[in-house]
Amino acid sequence: MENINVAVLGATGAVGQKFVALLQHPPYFRVRELVASSRSAGRSYRDAVTWVQNTPIPESVAAMDVKSIEEPLDSPILFSGLDSSIAGAVEERYAQAGHVVISNSKNHRMDADVPLVIPEINADHLALIERQPYAGALVTNPNCSTIFLAMALAPLHQAFGIDAVQVSTLQAISGAGYPGLSATDINGNVIPHISGEEEKLETETLKILGVIDGDKIAPAEMRISAQCTRVPVIDGHTETLSVKLQSHATIGDVRNALEAFRGFPQEAGLPSAPRQPLWVFDDPSRPQPARDLWVDGGMATLIGRLRPCPVFDLRMVLLGHNTIRGAAGAAILNAEALVAKDYVTSDGLLRRSEAVQGREPAEAGAGL
Amino acid sequence: MENINVAVLGATGAVGQKFVALLQHPPYFRVRELVASSRSAGRSYRDAVTWVQNTPIPESVAAMDVKSIEEPLDSPILFSGLDSSIAGAVEERYAQAGHVVISNSKNHRMDADVPLVIPEINADHLALIERQPYAGALVTNPNCSTIFLAMALAPLHQAFGIDAVQVSTLQAISGAGYPGLSATDINGNVIPHISGEEEKLETETLKILGVIDGDKIAPAEMRISAQCTRVPVIDGHTETLSVKLQSHATIGDVRNALEAFRGFPQEAGLPSAPRQPLWVFDDPSRPQPARDLWVDGGMATLIGRLRPCPVFDLRMVLLGHNTIRGAAGAAILNAEALVAKDYVTSDGLLRRSEAVQGREPAEAGAGL
Amino acid sequence: MENINVAVLGATGAVGQKFVALLQHPPYFRVRELVASSRSAGRSYRDAVTWVQNTPIPESVAAMDVKSIEEPLDSPILFSGLDSSIAGAVEERYAQAGHVVISNSKNHRMDADVPLVIPEINADHLALIERQPYAGALVTNPNCSTIFLAMALAPLHQAFGIDAVQVSTLQAISGAGYPGLSATDINGNVIPHISGEEEKLETETLKILGVIDGDKIAPAEMRISAQCTRVPVIDGHTETLSVKLQSHATIGDVRNALEAFRGFPQEAGLPSAPRQPLWVFDDPSRPQPARDLWVDGGMATLIGRLRPCPVFDLRMVLLGHNTIRGAAGAAILNAEALVAKDYVTSDGLLRRSEAVQGREPAEAGAGL
Amino acid sequence: MENINVAVLGATGAVGQKFVALLQHPPYFRVRELVASSRSAGRSYRDAVTWVQNTPIPESVAAMDVKSIEEPLDSPILFSGLDSSIAGAVEERYAQAGHVVISNSKNHRMDADVPLVIPEINADHLALIERQPYAGALVTNPNCSTIFLAMALAPLHQAFGIDAVQVSTLQAISGAGYPGLSATDINGNVIPHISGEEEKLETETLKILGVIDGDKIAPAEMRISAQCTRVPVIDGHTETLSVKLQSHATIGDVRNALEAFRGFPQEAGLPSAPRQPLWVFDDPSRPQPARDLWVDGGMATLIGRLRPCPVFDLRMVLLGHNTIRGAAGAAILNAEALVAKDYVTSDGLLRRSEAVQGREPAEAGAGL
Repeated sequence: MENINVAVLGATGAVGQKFVALLQHPPYFRVRELVASSRSAGRSYRDAVTWVQNTPIPESVAAMDVKSIEEPLDSPILFSGLDSSIAGAVEERYAQAGHVVISNSKNHRMDADVPLVIPEINADHLALIERQPYAGALVTNPNCSTIFLAMALAPLHQAFGIDAVQVSTLQAISGAGYPGLSATDINGNVIPHISGEEEKLETETLKILGVIDGDKIAPAEMRISAQCTRVPVIDGHTETLSVKLQSHATIGDVRNALEAFRGFPQEAGLPSAPRQPLWVFDDPSRPQPARDLWVDGGMATLIGRLRPCPVFDLRMVLLGHNTIRGAAGAAILNAEALVAKDYVTSDGLLRRSEAVQGREPAEAGAGL
Repeated sequence: MENINVAVLGATGAVGQKFVALLQHPPYFRVRELVASSRSAGRSYRDAVTWVQNTPIPESVAAMDVKSIEEPLDSPILFSGLDSSIAGAVEERYAQAGHVVISNSKNHRMDADVPLVIPEINADHLALIERQPYAGALVTNPNCSTIFLAMALAPLHQAFGIDAVQVSTLQAISGAGYPGLSATDINGNVIPHISGEEEKLETETLKILGVIDGDKIAPAEMRISAQCTRVPVIDGHTETLSVKLQSHATIGDVRNALEAFRGFPQEAGLPSAPRQPLWVFDDPSRPQPARDLWVDGGMATLIGRLRPCPVFDLRMVLLGHNTIRGAAGAAILNAEALVAKDYVTSDGLLRRSEAVQGREPAEAGAGL
Repeated sequence: MENINVAVLGATGAVGQKFVALLQHPPYFRVRELVASSRSAGRSYRDAVTWVQNTPIPESVAAMDVKSIEEPLDSPILFSGLDSSIAGAVEERYAQAGHVVISNSKNHRMDADVPLVIPEINADHLALIERQPYAGALVTNPNCSTIFLAMALAPLHQAFGIDAVQVSTLQAISGAGYPGLSATDINGNVIPHISGEEEKLETETLKILGVIDGDKIAPAEMRISAQCTRVPVIDGHTETLSVKLQSHATIGDVRNALEAFRGFPQEAGLPSAPRQPLWVFDDPSRPQPARDLWVDGGMATLIGRLRPCPVFDLRMVLLGHNTIRGAAGAAILNAEALVAKDYVTSDGLLRRSEAVQGREPAEAGAGL
Repeated sequence: MENINVAVLGATGAVGQKFVALLQHPPYFRVRELVASSRSAGRSYRDAVTWVQNTPIPESVAAMDVKSIEEPLDSPILFSGLDSSIAGAVEERYAQAGHVVISNSKNHRMDADVPLVIPEINADHLALIERQPYAGALVTNPNCSTIFLAMALAPLHQAFGIDAVQVSTLQAISGAGYPGLSATDINGNVIPHISGEEEKLETETLKILGVIDGDKIAPAEMRISAQCTRVPVIDGHTETLSVKLQSHATIGDVRNALEAFRGFPQEAGLPSAPRQPLWVFDDPSRPQPARDLWVDGGMATLIGRLRPCPVFDLRMVLLGHNTIRGAAGAAILNAEALVAKDYVTSDGLLRRSEAVQGREPAEAGAGL
């Protein structure tokens, strides 16, 4: 099993901390560099960070000196939880310098040559990195709410076709980062707007569900309308969903498609993969953020209240852990997919098309 | 100004308490009887009630003896906040005994001869009481979430016609009554199901927007899909809404229709009427339960984020005070409408068709 | 009735907003200038402020241009809700320029020549302004938690003497200002530390309960130990209290002393004065922030669970509205006291010792 | 390693569920019987329980039929999370029938012949069961808040003597069981009273810190004053504490005593024992329920803000997981201590004095 050195960019931020917490165990990666703004650089991680996780700072990194995002780095893989105000340029610079940047930031998600990946759905989009002008590469995962939406839509899109989607979200506080929202603003309150969020749901989903068409992604054709709200819940994004299909399907058909859905992470046995990507609950009061977030280590998408819709065809409720499956865990799963697909190896080299394409038949033969 | 004696049925419950709190001031009514289960009967209101309002028990009723719902009552008007497990039979018995029962309970809302009224929209439906087999009468107001939805849809239905609606609600804790929800269940959580709520939104709205057709209501023809959730907010139901119109309208047209909307309560100057039934906010982060509930004393419906919808025609966010405009205040406004329309007078008599119909031309002439 | 022009310093902050909201009605003052940092200066108040009150911005000030704290001001009275990082120098400068600065900031509270006033307790300390080197004057009110503690201790100190106090606080989110606390930090959490708060409770209380001794205040002699925590409550500071008295008193004696307590605001009938400064509840589950904050318009101190202590003599629970009685309302009451004592008149002049002292007999004769 | 069959009494309640969740892994015990009221009896556990944990029902028990508390049971050890309204008689009946009842209920805690045990402090009190008139035995753990208080006081009591304690608690919602508190009552609120809680802190602590004196416990001699509040936190009781010692100690001495504290569970290596019973934090903003509850699996007592007290000698803040270390985990640790002390063996027999006393020298020799 590989043990590739990685760096965390934006290591003192909320997503960066989650990277650090999640990366202390899995077999593929080993955190060797923590990178933050020049303000934190030179201090130990323990001193530089306001740690807001409910597990302690891993001993293996607490004493590590924080590096500056101005510095050159040694690790072949960089997990980026950088704030979008700086992520665009910094991530590009590191990709140019030869690193494989696995980014949770929004900046490059919609770039034509950047894969926007949920590996259960479109692990094949990773091949886009072949088209990138970088010595390294840049891979992104979607916005948190988009991930759960796309996960639920993917099997329906594949099996029945989707015409239109109405989605309304109830998003958790942690989605705003740290310090994020003022307690005065959200305690016992609902904020009916999250800047830029609805556009992400409406556009990123189409790219993820799209297909490779030459050197770009042809987005899926469906209409999506998203309305996003913030609610006083710490972790866990809930979404209510109405879907109009292109072909007829019973609720039973839909349920079967959801529960049977598997993708590359399950097939390749990636360490962070949920055993089952989509869980369907029978109890109409579930799933709930306070009860159900930790199914499959926070990496599953939870579905409830699957039922007909008097306007469209079917309705359901989605729930997912926004900082695990919706952010850091999503990025780590992308990196694991890159490793499993031999884009990155233990000696840190990024193997380009010849190697990768040479292996495809074997992979295909292995059922991947 | 009239000062009609009224009783509150279910006076110790959450809605009953809100009736008591709201009825201490307005000019039309004077609380003279407090009625609850036989368990509370015979005790002073102060002793019988677990008062959960953030204003003290009105001095005028604190020492009043609670009567039993088994007893005959003196007041011509009865405001009912009874639990639906008993409201059906009790309200009917009192209506048969000659009382005008103004009910917030769900039991009789969909009865063919019972008006389900939001007086800004369908005050004319009050005429249905002429068809009732009771010596008294029975008038109902809709479910809390339905009220805000119907208020926002009414002007669009009138001006442009509505084809379809997708609505998703984020409902407050107080909507579940008292003691209602366990804190363990809702603190920092979202519950994606409220039993029976979606059906109410989908059916009550059609009756309210319908028209009198002989001795019944012909419901409005539109398709509504509702998804209801509970969120950790004390007061204030938020709803996200997508609407497909029958005829073309710009967002400006829609806004004009919403802001210009007035009805009988405004025209008749009813004491509990909001000055303006529908308020439209420009700030995309509003309306919010913690900030905006008290516009027009909690009797207004607040609208935000009016914008186009990529699937339907337009989207918006609704907010209203669920225990004021959504419950007790709605019932009181109905009673005020009955008084203003001379169905009930200060000496307590219910004037039937001859009187009422005799007045209609004058009312019409007055622009009502 | 006077109608003195006032300015609000720090008008866009949390305390400043509360000043603006509270000052829209009372008879003594009229907001004529809104003052904030140079960043806000020149913009209309509506544009400059992130209004976080649950009542709308008063129409009378919404369009007013915000002035800079660098500018000279016209109003004789300035209410300061400035942040402590700048309050010290700015308030002093305005006092030197001839203004009466009524400050809620901590900076000058413990200055020897600055009165730290709760007018029910030590309105006589206002005479300290005679000793100040300013053309104007500087008057402060205590820290929010201190106010409720001092209010409860004052009658016991007067009647029985106090030897020692142990107090533990549960303070609301709004006490941290705006944006104040991160929702990530306090949602569903307790933070067991509020920087500098315990010291304020332990020292300010002694000054307030002290007596004028020549040109300074001789602090009261008692030992106070305070432990302060933050809890996820929007408004309302709760405090648990154990008190060791110097002389014997029954719980009945203590209750009588608390309920009978009145001071200058009640005697002079100040507009913002609570009718009764201290309310004692019988119900052991009260007072509660969500139920009882609005007694006497948020200006009362609420006491519950008065009972013996197995270690000291007695225990009780305190509650008060931290942004009303604990901040802006406290400052306004101080200003009203200055007006009622003729330190400030409608033409804005500050009458110094000759005038004030000349009136004292008459005031005394009027029962003040 | 033993694998003793156990039953959970009150298995559908909040504490019962926590027993079930915690007992699925440890080596000593194996849940074989789930016992609840006759209302649940005969149904599968999955159907009978409203499971409110955030981990799923363990597969090993989900399909198990629930037995009635009227029935005879087979398991030698019974963990009781019964409600106090029935726990007294039911637990006694089962103890008479030969079972070792490990109870979290309050009913028998203060009985003269019933050990009230925190095994780090008074594992020797378990010998009291020799005096019991039962074929089986009855062992109790303290009230949740008492456990954290006694844990912090024990090393100080041993090292310096304690004269007096003032403690004020901020207790979590889960401490009230399920459904427990109404959300209307506690959401965004503080309730300054928990019925009977203060008496438990003031009396149970003395018994725990007491010494065996013939056939009963001579309680420790110190004065304790407790004030208990409920706060809107799901899990985790916080306590602020002031302590007056009998002999002088610096804060450094106190810290050393706290951190060095170990007891029987650590010495015997009990499976549920925290590695270190008392953790002292340096960061003044810690410990916090949302961050620090899971130290040592929720079995540690967390201490912060250790500092001098201007009235007594020292102050600190305590935090503990009220449903783990404060309830189910405490009971399980008691049962593990009974096993480690050979009171209960794998064949389920309760060994009485001859056996136990015969082993004591060997145990002592082993450093226990």
